[in-house]
Amino acid sequence: MDFKVPNTLAEQIANYLAERIMIGQIQPGKRIQEATLATELKVSRASVKEALYTLERWHLVEITPRKGAAASKLDANHASELYDVYMHLLMMLAARLCVRWQDSDRDRMLAVVDSAVAQMREPSADITAVVEASFEVMEACCELVGNPYLTEALSNFKPAVSRAYYLSAERYRHGLTETSEFFTRLPQAVLARDVAQAQALIEAFAEHQKKMIQRALSSA
Amino acid sequence: MDFKVPNTLAEQIANYLAERIMIGQIQPGKRIQEATLATELKVSRASVKEALYTLERWHLVEITPRKGAAASKLDANHASELYDVYMHLLMMLAARLCVRWQDSDRDRMLAVVDSAVAQMREPSADITAVVEASFEVMEACCELVGNPYLTEALSNFKPAVSRAYYLSAERYRHGLTETSEFFTRLPQAVLARDVAQAQALIEAFAEHQKKMIQRALSSA
Repeated sequence: MDFKVPNTLAEQIANYLAERIMIGQIQPGKRIQEATLATELKVSRASVKEALYTLERWHLVEITPRKGAAASKLDANHASELYDVYMHLLMMLAARLCVRWQDSDRDRMLAVVDSAVAQMREPSADITAVVEASFEVMEACCELVGNPYLTEALSNFKPAVSRAYYLSAERYRHGLTETSEFFTRLPQAVLARDVAQAQALIEAFAEHQKKMIQRALSSA
Repeated sequence: MDFKVPNTLAEQIANYLAERIMIGQIQPGKRIQEATLATELKVSRASVKEALYTLERWHLVEITPRKGAAASKLDANHASELYDVYMHLLMMLAARLCVRWQDSDRDRMLAVVDSAVAQMREPSADITAVVEASFEVMEACCELVGNPYLTEALSNFKPAVSRAYYLSAERYRHGLTETSEFFTRLPQAVLARDVAQAQALIEAFAEHQKKMIQRALSSA
């Protein structure tokens, strides 16, 4: 579930904590004590602090000056607002991708989508693997579009969006047919450079996902 | 030019450095040495480190693990990609605002817009004051919309967008008539709850601003 090859100790701590927050082992709202964590992991407080800033950027932790850090809230309302911004960034990504992709990108785009769709069609699909595969599609698109600010904003949302998926994993599993359908139709719109259609597909799919997550969190 | 009342030492350092980067006193690409800065400002390296993370979130600094920090690049191409994402977030903000504002919000919305337009119409308009006043409009809209993720993303872009304005200040001054025109027409669309018109106004104005910034940076 790591987001990239960890480079520094702080990044390893951030990934470790991110996973625990995402799968709900650290509950929304729970305080995260710098000193306790440093002792527990046998690392310096400075490394923990650095990790907490990364988690704040990933929307998984809220840091209040002089009060400390806590796992960020994730109720149905927060999830809905989060997904709303994420959806808009994806729509922008799709619009730019429709314009910017070049003939030499076609095979790579299709390969990464095919691999994601194959995961989703597995009868015993592993949710973690499916979520990771969908993000790989997003990341491949980010690379092709080449807007560093958009890439950063989307990658900062990835952990919080994953967390919303994991918290509604059972419902997510039931929606896999719709997910693989979406990932099959989207590349067709992009290859046709049909911005309106690509954005309409994203909007419809994201609204569906948002409702599913909201229902899962409301009944939690 | 401070973004909020500084709470901590790290925030004060971040604001101080942000201002120097925004007005170009620290040039794009310039290395920022943690140790040198700590000595210069008579503060701890930990506080400088914390400030640099804030500046990274504000897109003003790039931190490379084990290499250190440098003022982020801002050439015509970067400015254009930056402004593109910022514009999309503003369009989302406007769409949500059109739906969510309530009768009790009307007076406050109009007051903050009027105050910005008054600044722009001053014959000897101060660019810093105009930029700040425009952001106050954006922030008032963020409060009304109440999406914490969108608010955070927009406020993180504010320093980098300001920097682009300051670097093209002379051209910005010449465009003030268009700016005040935009700020006069936008509230009409929002009050009419006309999402398409509000987004079209933002898109047209942002494309104009983007071109102006690109020209200024290309000729720099």
